[in-house]
Amino acid sequence: MSLIVQKYGGSSVQDAESIKRVARRIVETKKAGNQVVVVVSAMGDTTDDLLDLADDITENPPLREMDILLSSGERMSMALLAMAIHEHGETAQSFTGSQAGMITDAIHGKARIIEVSPKRVQEALDDGHISIVAGFQGMSRESKDITTMGRGGSDTTAVALAAALNADVCEIYTDVDGVFTADPRVVKNAQKIDTISSEDMLEMAAAGTKVLHLRSVEYARRFGVKLHVRSSFTDKEGTWVIPEETDQVPIKEGDPLEQPIISGVAHDASEGKLTITGVPDAPGKAAAVFNPIAEAGINIDMIVQDISVATGKTNISFTLSGSDGDKAQRLLLERKEEIGFDNLDFAEQVAKVSLVGGGMRNHPGVSARFFSALSDAGINIMLISTSEIRVSVITDIEDMDKAVQAIHTAFDLDSDEEAKVYAGTGR
Amino acid sequence: MSLIVQKYGGSSVQDAESIKRVARRIVETKKAGNQVVVVVSAMGDTTDDLLDLADDITENPPLREMDILLSSGERMSMALLAMAIHEHGETAQSFTGSQAGMITDAIHGKARIIEVSPKRVQEALDDGHISIVAGFQGMSRESKDITTMGRGGSDTTAVALAAALNADVCEIYTDVDGVFTADPRVVKNAQKIDTISSEDMLEMAAAGTKVLHLRSVEYARRFGVKLHVRSSFTDKEGTWVIPEETDQVPIKEGDPLEQPIISGVAHDASEGKLTITGVPDAPGKAAAVFNPIAEAGINIDMIVQDISVATGKTNISFTLSGSDGDKAQRLLLERKEEIGFDNLDFAEQVAKVSLVGGGMRNHPGVSARFFSALSDAGINIMLISTSEIRVSVITDIEDMDKAVQAIHTAFDLDSDEEAKVYAGTGR
Repeated sequence: MSLIVQKYGGSSVQDAESIKRVARRIVETKKAGNQVVVVVSAMGDTTDDLLDLADDITENPPLREMDILLSSGERMSMALLAMAIHEHGETAQSFTGSQAGMITDAIHGKARIIEVSPKRVQEALDDGHISIVAGFQGMSRESKDITTMGRGGSDTTAVALAAALNADVCEIYTDVDGVFTADPRVVKNAQKIDTISSEDMLEMAAAGTKVLHLRSVEYARRFGVKLHVRSSFTDKEGTWVIPEETDQVPIKEGDPLEQPIISGVAHDASEGKLTITGVPDAPGKAAAVFNPIAEAGINIDMIVQDISVATGKTNISFTLSGSDGDKAQRLLLERKEEIGFDNLDFAEQVAKVSLVGGGMRNHPGVSARFFSALSDAGINIMLISTSEIRVSVITDIEDMDKAVQAIHTAFDLDSDEEAKVYAGTGR
Repeated sequence: MSLIVQKYGGSSVQDAESIKRVARRIVETKKAGNQVVVVVSAMGDTTDDLLDLADDITENPPLREMDILLSSGERMSMALLAMAIHEHGETAQSFTGSQAGMITDAIHGKARIIEVSPKRVQEALDDGHISIVAGFQGMSRESKDITTMGRGGSDTTAVALAAALNADVCEIYTDVDGVFTADPRVVKNAQKIDTISSEDMLEMAAAGTKVLHLRSVEYARRFGVKLHVRSSFTDKEGTWVIPEETDQVPIKEGDPLEQPIISGVAHDASEGKLTITGVPDAPGKAAAVFNPIAEAGINIDMIVQDISVATGKTNISFTLSGSDGDKAQRLLLERKEEIGFDNLDFAEQVAKVSLVGGGMRNHPGVSARFFSALSDAGINIMLISTSEIRVSVITDIEDMDKAVQAIHTAFDLDSDEEAKVYAGTGR
């Protein structure tokens, strides 16, 4: 008998009809002979509505109270889902994050899981019930207060439970058919990936792919949890995300036995680029630039420094979240004399385009093909950054779609037909 | 320093504006030097909306899950209220029923309180915070599950906390100015009662007065809690409900030192009347009528039996909740032969009109004046029932308003001016 954890997001449970549909699937999974644990998010726009309500009252809500407010969304959906399951003749028990043993630190709004002790969940399973757990929330060991986990919280709850319960798989249900070789809205011929390693998925997520949250992929990788990302509207197989340690890749007849070299192309339009021109080439200058920025809690992504032999000065370029741009500029202008630079130039939105694939470790020539493809498409590259399994460039935002398509085609990722992404909705 | 418990119902916190208004009042109470505990219901129509959502999914929801669903309403409002208080510069901490130590039995949907241990609430008060508690909910000692308390649950939560914390008063905020000598929508000259004993208030609530729930009045009476029922829209004094054991009746200059003989007139339009004609006058017949009805869980209010000397048969009349009428008729018709009656007659809605006052114990002539008033108004009386401090009659529903007015006038309860009931809303 398998133990399956299923996670359903807000759009999968947005109204009574959706909840009933999800309940049907859960019951079918149970009837097929499995133990089933379900992690559920708040219905549809509930979380946003609650945030709006809070905003009508105060711009500066105490974080403890914000967590109490937000966590009520998941409680509603978990109870309604349990009711829908009962309507189908199976029994279900719902548990808050606290009751399910999700112990976190005390950082309200972005709590991290420190321990998972799902005793009541396991007992309910052993008694033949379907267990439903509110995603996105836990309890602080320290204060015994309710906490919420921030972005990707529900996915992370599901993966953490799957790890603690030794589940056979953690199914992440979403409104697309799986992870694609590129965003199908940008590349019409993108293909659904059947299987991808956790390592490649981690890079894809970090490079901008939105289907799975980076945090939950990292958790799955660390604890060896098998993920299956699939559509809540169909019964089709989605994308399997397999931790390297396991050799239990579900292989279907006709599949190649080796991992593909390249997993896919990711893009990210959330970054801006800051260029500091004329920085004196002396020790400590880079630190003088990056320390105040780091202290302000601003994360930097890619950095490039070039030096002009003629002038003996350097230009430092780096990318950061577009929304941090104003703050970073202000911090640097305050220190203009101390650092001694000439000018600041800020592009609020640039495109980061990445090629990801574990196979590129052992296959030289990937970078060359990558840069040729961009050059043939007439695209100018501003910054380059690579890891063992990823090549990323920064280009003008206007060139983004063209760059993604060019790389996708150059690496033979295009399929013969247009991607059918949103099977259930016809989009 | 006084400890004040304040309870705000759904209409007092129906939207962001109302929540901010309530927060202002709470903060003023704190700034006046009091420790303040607030019990709050779900916002406006939230509970009904949640019931509708559940109804879209199933007609037969598991009660454990229904309690989880409904309890999220109070969690939302308590967190928002805490935020609004912070916006005014005071600190507040909100607690679920479980965190506030409201321990109940395991009867989901109508749980009874078995213990109140408000340790965290007291600690928050001692640390200088305003404590907010979600009304209507608790935790089952047995199953560690969330429970809700049914009708009157929030009022009861407030009174129970006031008792456990030894509060100086429990203020129940509502949308009327207090308890009136009769419903001001029926009697234009009804007066607001300044002070009423718990005992009289209990009879008024049982006899149909809707301002306070019977259950919370009973709890207050049993544990000696002073209640103050007042409007959330004004600062005016409302109605003090004082347990007899305490002699701390707040007396204002000019008040009479004795309790008034009569508190007021209550009416109830929720009952129906069932008359069984031609029941043989033999031992066991009354039991044969009332046992099946009791076993079906139907509550009976007033009973009258008269006997016809001529026929030797009796007629039995009794009142019950109008919605139970069909069921009761069915049960009796199934046993027609066994009981041997001639006919059943059911009036789906009758009026129960009651005069309540502790003083009538020691003042003969009250009943006489009561029946004369009705007779003078040409009102026919169908059944009569009395207790030490109450006289009730059943009349035709069409005569209800007239009967209430006639009794109100006959006992000198009319004021000189029309009652201003809903001061804040102008209704």
